[in-house]
Amino acid sequence: MKISALMTSAGINIGICVLLWSLYSVLRKQPAFVRVYFGRRIAEENRLLREAFILERFVPSTGWIVKALQCTEEDLLAAAGLDAIAFNRILVFSIRIFSLAAILCLFGILPVHYFGRKTHHLEIPSEQLHMFTVQNVEVQSRWLWVHSLVLYIISGVACFLLHIEYKHIARLRLLHLKRTTLNPGQFTVLVRGIPKTANESCSSDVDDFFTKYHASSYLFHQVVYKAGKVQKIMTGAKKACGKLDHSTSTDTTLDQSRKAITYPCCVCGASSNSFQLLPTDEVAKNIDNEECAAAFVFFKTRYGALLASQALQTSNPTKWVTDLAPEPDDVYWSNIWLPYKQLWIRRIATLLGSLVFSVLFLLPVTFIQGLSQLDQVHRKLPFLNGLLKQPYISQIITGYLPSVILLLFLYTVSPIMILFSTLEGPTSHSERKRSACSKVLYFFIWNVFFVNLASGAVISQLNSSSTTKDIAVQLAGVIPGQTTFFITYVLTSGWASLSSELMQLFGLIYNFIIKYVLRMKEDTAFVPTFPYHTEVPKVMLFGLLGFSCSVLAPLILPFLLVYFFLGYVVYRNQLLNVYRMRYDSGGLYWPIAHNTVMFSLVLTQIICFGVFGLKKSPVAAGFTIPPIFFILSFNQYCRTRFLPLFKTFPTQVRIIISIILQTSGE
Amino acid sequence: MKISALMTSAGINIGICVLLWSLYSVLRKQPAFVRVYFGRRIAEENRLLREAFILERFVPSTGWIVKALQCTEEDLLAAAGLDAIAFNRILVFSIRIFSLAAILCLFGILPVHYFGRKTHHLEIPSEQLHMFTVQNVEVQSRWLWVHSLVLYIISGVACFLLHIEYKHIARLRLLHLKRTTLNPGQFTVLVRGIPKTANESCSSDVDDFFTKYHASSYLFHQVVYKAGKVQKIMTGAKKACGKLDHSTSTDTTLDQSRKAITYPCCVCGASSNSFQLLPTDEVAKNIDNEECAAAFVFFKTRYGALLASQALQTSNPTKWVTDLAPEPDDVYWSNIWLPYKQLWIRRIATLLGSLVFSVLFLLPVTFIQGLSQLDQVHRKLPFLNGLLKQPYISQIITGYLPSVILLLFLYTVSPIMILFSTLEGPTSHSERKRSACSKVLYFFIWNVFFVNLASGAVISQLNSSSTTKDIAVQLAGVIPGQTTFFITYVLTSGWASLSSELMQLFGLIYNFIIKYVLRMKEDTAFVPTFPYHTEVPKVMLFGLLGFSCSVLAPLILPFLLVYFFLGYVVYRNQLLNVYRMRYDSGGLYWPIAHNTVMFSLVLTQIICFGVFGLKKSPVAAGFTIPPIFFILSFNQYCRTRFLPLFKTFPTQVRIIISIILQTSGE
Repeated sequence: MKISALMTSAGINIGICVLLWSLYSVLRKQPAFVRVYFGRRIAEENRLLREAFILERFVPSTGWIVKALQCTEEDLLAAAGLDAIAFNRILVFSIRIFSLAAILCLFGILPVHYFGRKTHHLEIPSEQLHMFTVQNVEVQSRWLWVHSLVLYIISGVACFLLHIEYKHIARLRLLHLKRTTLNPGQFTVLVRGIPKTANESCSSDVDDFFTKYHASSYLFHQVVYKAGKVQKIMTGAKKACGKLDHSTSTDTTLDQSRKAITYPCCVCGASSNSFQLLPTDEVAKNIDNEECAAAFVFFKTRYGALLASQALQTSNPTKWVTDLAPEPDDVYWSNIWLPYKQLWIRRIATLLGSLVFSVLFLLPVTFIQGLSQLDQVHRKLPFLNGLLKQPYISQIITGYLPSVILLLFLYTVSPIMILFSTLEGPTSHSERKRSACSKVLYFFIWNVFFVNLASGAVISQLNSSSTTKDIAVQLAGVIPGQTTFFITYVLTSGWASLSSELMQLFGLIYNFIIKYVLRMKEDTAFVPTFPYHTEVPKVMLFGLLGFSCSVLAPLILPFLLVYFFLGYVVYRNQLLNVYRMRYDSGGLYWPIAHNTVMFSLVLTQIICFGVFGLKKSPVAAGFTIPPIFFILSFNQYCRTRFLPLFKTFPTQVRIIISIILQTSGE
Repeated sequence: MKISALMTSAGINIGICVLLWSLYSVLRKQPAFVRVYFGRRIAEENRLLREAFILERFVPSTGWIVKALQCTEEDLLAAAGLDAIAFNRILVFSIRIFSLAAILCLFGILPVHYFGRKTHHLEIPSEQLHMFTVQNVEVQSRWLWVHSLVLYIISGVACFLLHIEYKHIARLRLLHLKRTTLNPGQFTVLVRGIPKTANESCSSDVDDFFTKYHASSYLFHQVVYKAGKVQKIMTGAKKACGKLDHSTSTDTTLDQSRKAITYPCCVCGASSNSFQLLPTDEVAKNIDNEECAAAFVFFKTRYGALLASQALQTSNPTKWVTDLAPEPDDVYWSNIWLPYKQLWIRRIATLLGSLVFSVLFLLPVTFIQGLSQLDQVHRKLPFLNGLLKQPYISQIITGYLPSVILLLFLYTVSPIMILFSTLEGPTSHSERKRSACSKVLYFFIWNVFFVNLASGAVISQLNSSSTTKDIAVQLAGVIPGQTTFFITYVLTSGWASLSSELMQLFGLIYNFIIKYVLRMKEDTAFVPTFPYHTEVPKVMLFGLLGFSCSVLAPLILPFLLVYFFLGYVVYRNQLLNVYRMRYDSGGLYWPIAHNTVMFSLVLTQIICFGVFGLKKSPVAAGFTIPPIFFILSFNQYCRTRFLPLFKTFPTQVRIIISIILQTSGE
């Protein structure tokens, strides 16, 4: 691909971005769409809306950008929770490290590449893109030490920055824990796998067990019954009722059960009278013959609940399984009923499902990759020759089309992965989303990064007469060569999808259809939560592309840097205005991000080892090995130093909270 | 290799075995060697030894075999602990599954192989060994369904038997836990990473911390000080003193510190006066300026200690690290002093060390593998041609020498791995041994199994003109072809090493030198513990060989079966008579064994998939895939159902113990 083709692609995307951003800055001022763009605020503040006509509304503006940038971390934490902070820090880290990488690579490495061979240089716009990659460096070049040096600086600074961020998030997580005052989740343990006994009721079983083995801190319990078919029809009827009524929230079906634990739990010393308000006794009588599925057990102290949740209860580890209960809004009710014994089968089945899905997905990706190699298209589809000879069409096909098709296919990934995660049987919304996040991340890294490299290698392979020696040479050519595709991927999937995220295309269309086509009243209670399971993997994938291409094909870095800047503005704006924080995992996305960056850094070193080896520079190749051990050691250090904080709560903090609360008289 | 060469090898080994076993049955009756062969009994019972001359002593006998077979599981548990039971069950499992496999493969698969091609059959002794392997089956043979069927039966029965054994060991572990009455380890928590404070002494720091955060169950603590250089010289002097004195035990150096915790700990309710007996106050005064390294904290109840050990203490996970303390005899004192912050570096360093060692070990193994291929020796070392043409010499070289050399090299592995495990910084002897066991196991599987296959493939490769297609064909030939080597390995490493284990060659020579050459008095207190870290991996490696060769080259099975039978007799005898149980990990070797068997079964299916694929039988190849998922599901089930019991202790059991002890008035 030529530079000019790249510019065409960049131009199209910049155009789309400018258009969508301007549209957004106009649309957000229209009262009709206020529910789309300010869902969170509306839901929180219940403000009155002005309907008057003002001309200012139809002029594009930039004030919202300033607002998004000005908001402090405290505001963001209050508005969108610790997960939002973690996501924000991922972007901040990316901006920092890739700013440094861009400066080093554009001023240090790009000249080495461009003047790597003594060839006649064309004018820059008609120069081939590979002139700017490591492909243009001569074999046994003496300039590869620049690459090694830059790699060392990037790895070192990345680890340093990661350490700062990890520390920061760990500190915030502890603060967050201390700040949470009367959080019922922290006093509650979810018990699954309650064994059946013939004579007694399930409720008294639970009571007996916890009175016997956790006598000092056990307070009360609430059994969750498995709804039979009659129950399901009833809740279905209620749901329909609620929809006709328009005044009830969409969550009606869950209200009955959710009420059971949203009453504030009392710290030790308070009476347990507050639980007599519950209407659950009647419920229990009605469905007495139903199977007992799980129970929420309340404890007097946070510490008691923590200890009970961590211990193995009986000699059969699949019975009386205890975990800290999720927050009331976070509970995923339809999975609470699942028998604990099923879970291991479900886990295997979903793992298998995800694997099969990833393999089947190879087909479109390989086809798309074929399109990006124009020579192949010419040869395989000769009837298109006339069309393809027009320079503009060919530039669009090589530069733009493949990544758009890939993008469309990728939109199916996150719904399917969240379906798999639901089937896996998590008991909370946040766990379900986090599990989907990991799945999507693995999928992206595998299907976008590795398969693109591999299919590029296979297609190049088909051309040349295959001998064993060629494979190695081809593979070395592929890694920097695929940058073309990756740069266009950043442009389309990165820039354009950010703009469509900002525009909320789906929300806009949905809102439009509801309001003007179906003429229904708007559903005021429904505000979506932030889709961490699609956005975190996307940002991490771009990080991986950035690290692995930085030294080999530095031209990708400016485009990536723009993406991260735009993302910083857009996501902050969306978190503050659009999405609601219904549940919060407490920053658990950070360890996922940390591990991915570690993986990216190690992979970068391995790729560079291969490339330097093929450039017949054993010294430069040898210098890529020590950083691998350094990075792995750093990772091990972080696992020891910070990771335990993300898995459990320190005793000290819990006890201090209890003491503070007791002395303050709560 | 011909059948007759195999028989030569088997003959030599049978001869050695019969000789050593007869020698053993004579030597064990000699009073001079009683400390070598009855170390455990002598140490326990302090029996008087008869020195009279009786002719019967010099007649080989078989009574000890009967004794070893007759002893019940209870006897073994009492004499050698739960680890010995776990090891014994590994052998029982192996005997059961390989008896079945031998019957199925010898009567079902061997005829299919032998009559696989319509060739002229020689007399069986001069038949080539590969006539009995899957190599002799025709491409696209219709008889491969026999292989699939046998594979299904073996996998299914193996999982069934494993389930029985896992259940049995888990039950014994719980019984063992319940039976242990006043075990100080269960009341004690080992605290590491105690932060330094300027003003106070370390001891009062520990006291403050546990009084504050674990007030309800904290009882008392004992600080372990790091000995400075002066201290080391003093202990060195004491050690020298002790050696001259002959009357003190070799453990003098540890006595000071060990005393601190061997006093029985009291169940809640008893006064803490029993601790005033300790001379530690004086010690503490002397070394007041020394660094405080760790502390043993005693709790009132087992449950309190368990909970305190599981919780994360402070917001810095590298400080106040708590673990359940090992039993007094199990504590590895020289590692208690290690700063907790160092451990992650040590872990990485030892991992790196083991990897480098494994890679360097490739050199002798590859060389040995070269020897076993006689054509190669002819070609590479032509001056040996005269010697090698003698049929007897060539049979010894191909059939016997390679595995003897490998065996000698492998003797260096376990000391090096236990050194690595020591450097890793475990706090107990049993943990150190278990860690070494895993390391040796990985090493064996990698260096004996995989590298032998790979080097066999590479050497065959060097012969033929290398084209891409040939590689696949060669590899398929290698897997059943290497059975020759594996059978001789079973004969030498298996049979012969069992006999040398029985003879206690090292112990015998050591005893002889001490007694008759140096004329020193025998060291009565020193009785070795059972080397689980060498014996468990050895047995598991033979299991892996058995599973992976069973269907492809069934001739290995009778030899293996003999090995397991001999092992069953020998190891029981050794556990009962020779080795002392100083510490016990409570059956934690079983999960290692279980995982290895799972790995072996999956690997068998994968190898068969490859072989059937090369035999161009897609149906048979396809049939190997479902068992893989079945085996992985079964493994996941066992992880959920049994594994947690091997990681922690159930609350129920602990509380029940406390109740029983309280009611019985202890």
